[in-house]
Amino acid sequence: MSEVKDKALRAKQAAGRMGLADTRQKNAALLRMAEALIAEESSLIAANEKDLQRGRTTGLRASLLDRLKLDGKRIAAMAEGLRQIAALPDPVGDVLESFTRPNGLRINKVRVPIGVIGIIYEARPNVTVDAAGLCLKTGNTVVLRGGSSALESNRRIVQVLHDALAETELPTDALQLIESADRSSAGEMLKLNGLLDVLIPRGGASLIRSVVENATVPVIETGAGVCHTYIDNEADKEKAFRIAINAKVQRPSVCNAMETLLVQSGFAARHLEALAGQFREAGVELRGCPRSRALVPDMLPAEEADWGTEYNDYILSVKVVDGLDEALEHIARYGTRHSECIVTENREHADRFLREVDAAAVYHNASTRFTDGFEFGFGAEIGISTQKLHARGPMGLPALTSTKYIVKGDGQIRS
Amino acid sequence: MSEVKDKALRAKQAAGRMGLADTRQKNAALLRMAEALIAEESSLIAANEKDLQRGRTTGLRASLLDRLKLDGKRIAAMAEGLRQIAALPDPVGDVLESFTRPNGLRINKVRVPIGVIGIIYEARPNVTVDAAGLCLKTGNTVVLRGGSSALESNRRIVQVLHDALAETELPTDALQLIESADRSSAGEMLKLNGLLDVLIPRGGASLIRSVVENATVPVIETGAGVCHTYIDNEADKEKAFRIAINAKVQRPSVCNAMETLLVQSGFAARHLEALAGQFREAGVELRGCPRSRALVPDMLPAEEADWGTEYNDYILSVKVVDGLDEALEHIARYGTRHSECIVTENREHADRFLREVDAAAVYHNASTRFTDGFEFGFGAEIGISTQKLHARGPMGLPALTSTKYIVKGDGQIRS
Repeated sequence: MSEVKDKALRAKQAAGRMGLADTRQKNAALLRMAEALIAEESSLIAANEKDLQRGRTTGLRASLLDRLKLDGKRIAAMAEGLRQIAALPDPVGDVLESFTRPNGLRINKVRVPIGVIGIIYEARPNVTVDAAGLCLKTGNTVVLRGGSSALESNRRIVQVLHDALAETELPTDALQLIESADRSSAGEMLKLNGLLDVLIPRGGASLIRSVVENATVPVIETGAGVCHTYIDNEADKEKAFRIAINAKVQRPSVCNAMETLLVQSGFAARHLEALAGQFREAGVELRGCPRSRALVPDMLPAEEADWGTEYNDYILSVKVVDGLDEALEHIARYGTRHSECIVTENREHADRFLREVDAAAVYHNASTRFTDGFEFGFGAEIGISTQKLHARGPMGLPALTSTKYIVKGDGQIRS
Repeated sequence: MSEVKDKALRAKQAAGRMGLADTRQKNAALLRMAEALIAEESSLIAANEKDLQRGRTTGLRASLLDRLKLDGKRIAAMAEGLRQIAALPDPVGDVLESFTRPNGLRINKVRVPIGVIGIIYEARPNVTVDAAGLCLKTGNTVVLRGGSSALESNRRIVQVLHDALAETELPTDALQLIESADRSSAGEMLKLNGLLDVLIPRGGASLIRSVVENATVPVIETGAGVCHTYIDNEADKEKAFRIAINAKVQRPSVCNAMETLLVQSGFAARHLEALAGQFREAGVELRGCPRSRALVPDMLPAEEADWGTEYNDYILSVKVVDGLDEALEHIARYGTRHSECIVTENREHADRFLREVDAAAVYHNASTRFTDGFEFGFGAEIGISTQKLHARGPMGLPALTSTKYIVKGDGQIRS
């Protein structure tokens, strides 16, 4: 049996016991795991150093090496993340609906764990801890498959967490790490219907696309954000500038950052030059449509490909539009249904935008950067779903649960 | 462009307008569609006759010919189904959650249509009408791909519904029928990511398996039911007999019918012979484990394959178990997580069964035959989900919706 199948089978066999763990047992395990990470700081850093050395030798980019690196502060943050997950309410067992039928049957719809969750991700050791914590808190077992350049770090992290789990009432098999570095191990996970209940890819667009296109196990797609901010003629200038700048530059590398600014012609005629100046001061390269460039000549020309590009960088495409209709059409055509914003003081325009734009989150007069489980108050986040099934938008703990109907009768039969 | 892609694209282009239709517009269209079916009874029967003739020529089984056949009564039932869907509450626009963040952001989670729904089904013309009605009521557009032996019937039904839609405020492109009879058209639908938001296969196990195994579009799996009834030693004899007989014989051909009876040894020693007699009177063939056959010698011997078989017929496998643990193990091993029942007067045993059995619906002292959208009071049903994502168990109208977050601010930015 392959490593992938063996470990998925162990996770499945542990799922029954894991699903019955109560909140106290799960929280105790999460806190024990947090302590163990702190206690094992030096062995974690030593294992991580092997990954870093290999990364340097193989010419891994500096930004990837930085993401890969573990130090005392980052290990403390991982442990703190587990403590925060322990402090969150446990959704398992919540009664979502409760009704009695005319024949006397009493039906409750209750939250239950999903079962076995597969996570495929890149070389980020913090995801190993975070995903393990979220899955265990919700009574699931988890099969992790991280990027091969973080293998030594992940192996040591999972050893530490396994040792911690062994001192608790949870089954250690609830947490599985695929160590096989070749690409076929990820491919094998995608087809494990019957063993894995869901796959969640976490990472860049190409990883997610590859999982979506090849998986037969159900996938929760977390994804790319080509997010827009539309500034209406009736926008408050000060709000518009503040929101647009924040949406682009507060953290350009993330999926909820703005990639395209749409500006209605009247506002553009009055203010685009000043706004462009502020973007330039913040180090943002602007790529404009012809009408934008007529107003701000030193923008680069935007090409067709720009409108669909998630730059994740200090680059912004800018388009002047006649009004709401053109903005809605542009967003429908080029958006990725992640987060979209209108800035206006006109309530009718805002309502139409909020109603007609098809996206996980639609904003009126606020930065798209708020699309985030912590900012929404969920206390944790396994990702931001850009698909429409099961969960859409920031996914907190309830997104890692399913439901079952519990039906109590007194001898009822169907006639 | 292929027919499949062309029609899916039309459905996608109509999805925006369809999603904005209000409840009055949608209900008016459903009622108009119902009227049109009644008015076109003779042309529908004429088209159906062509399918029936071809079916007879090609040797279609009598049960399939019966499913395929349309007459005045069945057409009236299809129209009545549309009227019932019109009478149901519209879930679109429902506010599921509403909260205000410390920074003043007001966040509403509202129900929205999924978008474009693909339905792949067998030669049942009534599914054409039913699926169209459910999808349109929830503001979705729909691409239907029915069995080729019902093509003439489906083509005429969709013509009639299109003519009806043309007199309403809904886009006629919201309803698409794939007419291409070759198998590749179904295969093409499975890969239309970006055009179809979800696929729902409706039909037998092999159809569903083929869709699940080959689709890259998200699938809602509706499925096979190897359902069990476990009779505990502390069961009330009269309830146990009534529930077990009903679960098997009230309608053996459906997914929520019982396939395996598990009986605790004490109850079996006292009552299995009498219960077997009742099953035999009802025309049920019994296949027993060795312990069952020791008590009721004229049962056929059950083979390993019996425990995992969905007979959908007057056949029942019977196993005597030592108690709850063995029953739970058997169900975990052979069940399909559809519907499972315990009959007992012991509350602790019942609670443990309801908690530990992993299935869409778990029953105490009631027939598994109640797992059904109508019986649960949902008023309609697009199928019974046996997967854990998005929807589990009977799926009413809300299962055909997604959500979006509407965020209203006053200039908030992220710091």
